[in-house]
Amino acid sequence: MIPQNGRQRVIIENVTPEINGGYYMAKRVVGEKMTVEADVYADGHDQWAAVLLYRHESEKKYTPVRMKELTNDRWSASFIPEKQGVYFYSIEAWLDHGLSWHHDTSRKINGSQQVSVELLMGAEMLEGMIKSASKTEKVRLKEIVALFKDESQYEEACRVAQSHEVHDFFIQYPDNRHIVTYKVLKLYVDRPKALFSTWYELFPRSTSDVKDQHGTFKDVIKRLPRLEEMGMDVLYLPPVHPIGNAFRKGKNNNTQARPDEPGSPWAIGNIEGGHTALLPALGTMEDFVEMVIEAGKHGIEIAMDYALQCSQDHPWVKEHPQWFKWRPDGTIQYAENPPKKYQDVVPLNFECEDWQNLWLALKDILLFWVSKGIRIFRVDNPHTKSFRFWEWVIAEVKTVDPDVLFLSEAFTRPKIMQQLAKLGFSQSYTYFTWRNTKAELEAYMTELTQSEMRDYFRANFWPNTPDINPYNMQSGNENMFITRHCLASTLSSSYGFYGPVFEYLVHQAIPGKEEYLDSEKYEVKNWDWDKQTKLRQLITMINQIRKDNKALQTTYNYQSCKIENDMIMAYLRKTDDNQNCIMVVVNLDPFHRQSGWVKVPLSELGVAEGHHLVMHDLITDARYIWTKEWNFVELDPTMLPFHIFRIEGLKQH
Amino acid sequence: MIPQNGRQRVIIENVTPEINGGYYMAKRVVGEKMTVEADVYADGHDQWAAVLLYRHESEKKYTPVRMKELTNDRWSASFIPEKQGVYFYSIEAWLDHGLSWHHDTSRKINGSQQVSVELLMGAEMLEGMIKSASKTEKVRLKEIVALFKDESQYEEACRVAQSHEVHDFFIQYPDNRHIVTYKVLKLYVDRPKALFSTWYELFPRSTSDVKDQHGTFKDVIKRLPRLEEMGMDVLYLPPVHPIGNAFRKGKNNNTQARPDEPGSPWAIGNIEGGHTALLPALGTMEDFVEMVIEAGKHGIEIAMDYALQCSQDHPWVKEHPQWFKWRPDGTIQYAENPPKKYQDVVPLNFECEDWQNLWLALKDILLFWVSKGIRIFRVDNPHTKSFRFWEWVIAEVKTVDPDVLFLSEAFTRPKIMQQLAKLGFSQSYTYFTWRNTKAELEAYMTELTQSEMRDYFRANFWPNTPDINPYNMQSGNENMFITRHCLASTLSSSYGFYGPVFEYLVHQAIPGKEEYLDSEKYEVKNWDWDKQTKLRQLITMINQIRKDNKALQTTYNYQSCKIENDMIMAYLRKTDDNQNCIMVVVNLDPFHRQSGWVKVPLSELGVAEGHHLVMHDLITDARYIWTKEWNFVELDPTMLPFHIFRIEGLKQH
Repeated sequence: MIPQNGRQRVIIENVTPEINGGYYMAKRVVGEKMTVEADVYADGHDQWAAVLLYRHESEKKYTPVRMKELTNDRWSASFIPEKQGVYFYSIEAWLDHGLSWHHDTSRKINGSQQVSVELLMGAEMLEGMIKSASKTEKVRLKEIVALFKDESQYEEACRVAQSHEVHDFFIQYPDNRHIVTYKVLKLYVDRPKALFSTWYELFPRSTSDVKDQHGTFKDVIKRLPRLEEMGMDVLYLPPVHPIGNAFRKGKNNNTQARPDEPGSPWAIGNIEGGHTALLPALGTMEDFVEMVIEAGKHGIEIAMDYALQCSQDHPWVKEHPQWFKWRPDGTIQYAENPPKKYQDVVPLNFECEDWQNLWLALKDILLFWVSKGIRIFRVDNPHTKSFRFWEWVIAEVKTVDPDVLFLSEAFTRPKIMQQLAKLGFSQSYTYFTWRNTKAELEAYMTELTQSEMRDYFRANFWPNTPDINPYNMQSGNENMFITRHCLASTLSSSYGFYGPVFEYLVHQAIPGKEEYLDSEKYEVKNWDWDKQTKLRQLITMINQIRKDNKALQTTYNYQSCKIENDMIMAYLRKTDDNQNCIMVVVNLDPFHRQSGWVKVPLSELGVAEGHHLVMHDLITDARYIWTKEWNFVELDPTMLPFHIFRIEGLKQH
Repeated sequence: MIPQNGRQRVIIENVTPEINGGYYMAKRVVGEKMTVEADVYADGHDQWAAVLLYRHESEKKYTPVRMKELTNDRWSASFIPEKQGVYFYSIEAWLDHGLSWHHDTSRKINGSQQVSVELLMGAEMLEGMIKSASKTEKVRLKEIVALFKDESQYEEACRVAQSHEVHDFFIQYPDNRHIVTYKVLKLYVDRPKALFSTWYELFPRSTSDVKDQHGTFKDVIKRLPRLEEMGMDVLYLPPVHPIGNAFRKGKNNNTQARPDEPGSPWAIGNIEGGHTALLPALGTMEDFVEMVIEAGKHGIEIAMDYALQCSQDHPWVKEHPQWFKWRPDGTIQYAENPPKKYQDVVPLNFECEDWQNLWLALKDILLFWVSKGIRIFRVDNPHTKSFRFWEWVIAEVKTVDPDVLFLSEAFTRPKIMQQLAKLGFSQSYTYFTWRNTKAELEAYMTELTQSEMRDYFRANFWPNTPDINPYNMQSGNENMFITRHCLASTLSSSYGFYGPVFEYLVHQAIPGKEEYLDSEKYEVKNWDWDKQTKLRQLITMINQIRKDNKALQTTYNYQSCKIENDMIMAYLRKTDDNQNCIMVVVNLDPFHRQSGWVKVPLSELGVAEGHHLVMHDLITDARYIWTKEWNFVELDPTMLPFHIFRIEGLKQH
């Protein structure tokens, strides 16, 4: 059987982004450039052309963007999505006889060949355009056709044949009879917060001003002006639901809790309710909604924890026993990682016969909180629940409200973290927490920003969390905390930290483990919210710098700069148009002064050696003039372990 | 809408080989190992299992091969195809509750936990197997079930629970209710010649013993014993068809041929016939068939040239004018690459309205020569004809006779060469001809054998062709010819050279070009077929070594060896089982003695330092004992610029 497409001579392949063969959507935020590339080529020596097509789901017609060759048959085009939701995109390509004629005839004329016959062929092609052309164009096309046929005007005809005018006619009315169309791919466009966000985590029960008193949502409201002043725009709260009484954990994860101990907020549910109820000690639903509204007034969104596990006295255990695993002895299957046991939490059985009703109930939890004003969910351990569930529930909720964002808290193997991001999570926790050396950090940044992950994985960098007191910070060295904060906030456009514990350099660990000693997970803490520290001041300044400098509002413009000292790391972040250009230089050694020569990529900045670059230190407000490619830097960690320079005095594209 | 596959918890992705999303087939030859890899993983902490399935097109049932994890969620399995034609393969994976039970229960027992309830759960799973089990198994399963339920035999039950026996029951009767199946992919299996072949190219018109006399097929027959002695197994002949009279080219591509000049064989067709006719001066169809049969008796296959272009007096120009492009002045469109003109050849128009009949006629040419005994076609410039045509015609011809092989003569941009290989060409010419330095050669070998090309691109290395007299050989230095032959024949399992011109160190070039001066393309040559040369002797010896050593019969086992001298290149080629292991060391400098320390990868050879490796030089028959990892080598090009060692004294896997 001879295939129908036998006269299609162009190949389109290796399209990027195309995630899992197009099964998953690429990701961008509103206003973020989307670049599509493909290998496009044809047999023979003819010219070919390629066009990127895109449309928002609300539009009927595709918008075309002419693709350009990069090198070696790789073609590229870009567009900037302006609306949230799904975009469709594809590529069309064809062998272009008009452009081939223009190219070949020009070369023949330049080679002093006689082209009378070629002019007749050109006339024929231009004649074919007349029926589609506008009135003015019709007139001009007829003139050119007559010219090409008029041997007495041969030289003028040759001039016109080589002109941009004729070239543009061939561009506008291509001979694309045997056009090749690639399959349609999808892009999901989020609101900008998905890419640029500044997170603070605190336990609402630890927000009271009164020592040993259980904090409330009203206390959280009192903390908002402080968080706004620091520049935080997402406040993430661990679960706020009733906490299980059965097998409640005590201080330091003790399996025997004293009667007055509050338990872990992640042991969700008791007779007072489950995932849609509130812990009475925190306040009422009205208090909760008031907190969400008040936060909004301070430019802060509340991120809720979505932790799909139940305590043994969660109402579902009685109401929907079919959603859990039961053992032959009639007990419920609790969480285990043999030989470890977690009797205080029972997992949901995603393979149960009644799985569809389970999915619906889990979706209803999200929609319930969306109805209370929540637009961000931090999802607890998504990698221990079914991938297909996440794919479905995220899409369902975003259909109801495309503003809703999901942060994946999966600290697990790379491919699982990637899969969760591919199937729809808006942001993901990362390995940043354990990347310490320059080599590690640079390799990880390259992976996040230059591999396929660039198109679906949005990193959120956290130096610590309630679950992770990383070894690198267990010394409690203040410079180390400052450095880790600087790295997180200037390497990644989304970052966060586990609030007061980080601010106040809390670092005592369970010996040999990355667990906090006397962890807040199991007790109520009190913090001195008015304390001024160097770290808090730097957090405030850097967050303001992030707001003022567009270059820090995406992670994907990262590029490392060479520096001849392995203890110093330098990187450039700039907007495409060079309007905003930030260079960060960080001393990774918290104990010693380090110095070295850092290379500024002058040609990428569009300047030559000798140009006066103004290096404006945005923390100290000092300005240095650099005129060379290689420049000396020295950083004393006891003063300040980093520079954040804005490079001023650049030509703008 | 809740998806139907909501309980499928395993992911299968990034399967290799999967060429262009599975659109194209991977390639192997009969007896060549096919390894399939995939990322396979699941949510949670349970165990999962994966199976590779494969079947030949003639079989109904898939054969399963259990996959094993390599590292980081990458799984792998292999099989060896034993038949020519199409194989189908896919992957199945599932979350395995039996294996999870076995794994977790074992860990609990090892952690001294009480597992009475787990034993009851295990009993339930084993009970479920009874209905599918064999008679003997049924008995044993019932015993184990009883044991697991018998608290008085708790310790024995624990022992059996951890046993291989129970583990194997779970392997044999998996709980794979929610199995995930990957899409079906295809593999094409050729006869072994597709991977291992030794080519010689000569112009039949230059085979006469009589000076200035036009050679014939009968003369070719006289050359066969010599070629057999040299170890060649494919004899490739440029086109043997009538040569156009119109615009015939003379000596050195002169556009004005003298009446007695024979013309280029690639200007196919005149009034005596076209692509299915023979040039009368070469002989009759009977002579041709006799030559094919005689060649077979010497273990040599004749490869024909399939050059889809016509001279202006090819019969098709009159019979099928619709297959060509005509210009407004009534002349035919000849081949051009402006400002160059090739009036002696006219291209076929693959976009013509009658393209389907054109395709059928082109297929008939191939089938005609297949009916005359031809099984190998060297395709001239396939990259200037439609890709879709090649995809179709190769598949069609292989349906008629799967033994037919196609060599792609496309010296063009990388993606085009790759596309032709993907769509079905059995072998491809390469950039070897222009890869001279160690860095270039090693990078190219890595690309051919370790990138995706490994699965579809079979290289055929040629140091020269009638079209390419490479700069690196224009000095005529004998050592250079010897080196280039050694590299071609020991780097690639398929290689060839442009016969007597190569053997006799012909190297005179059109100044500044890679074209032979007085090229055989435009004239009849005479060669002294009896001349004995050092090069001919080495060709003969190396071809025998290639026949005797399985390690040289595939290209894909290439691995470079470190050597601390950039003028010396070393590489290892070995069979999987270490039965045959060849190390080649080549001095790339034809003028100077070079020496250095070469590293033998001892651990891959399965031996430790101190082990006596016998390095058997297969050219000189000398034997050296190497006991260290790093060993001294010295090569004098005037003696012999290379060693081909067989490493003896290895343990065999």
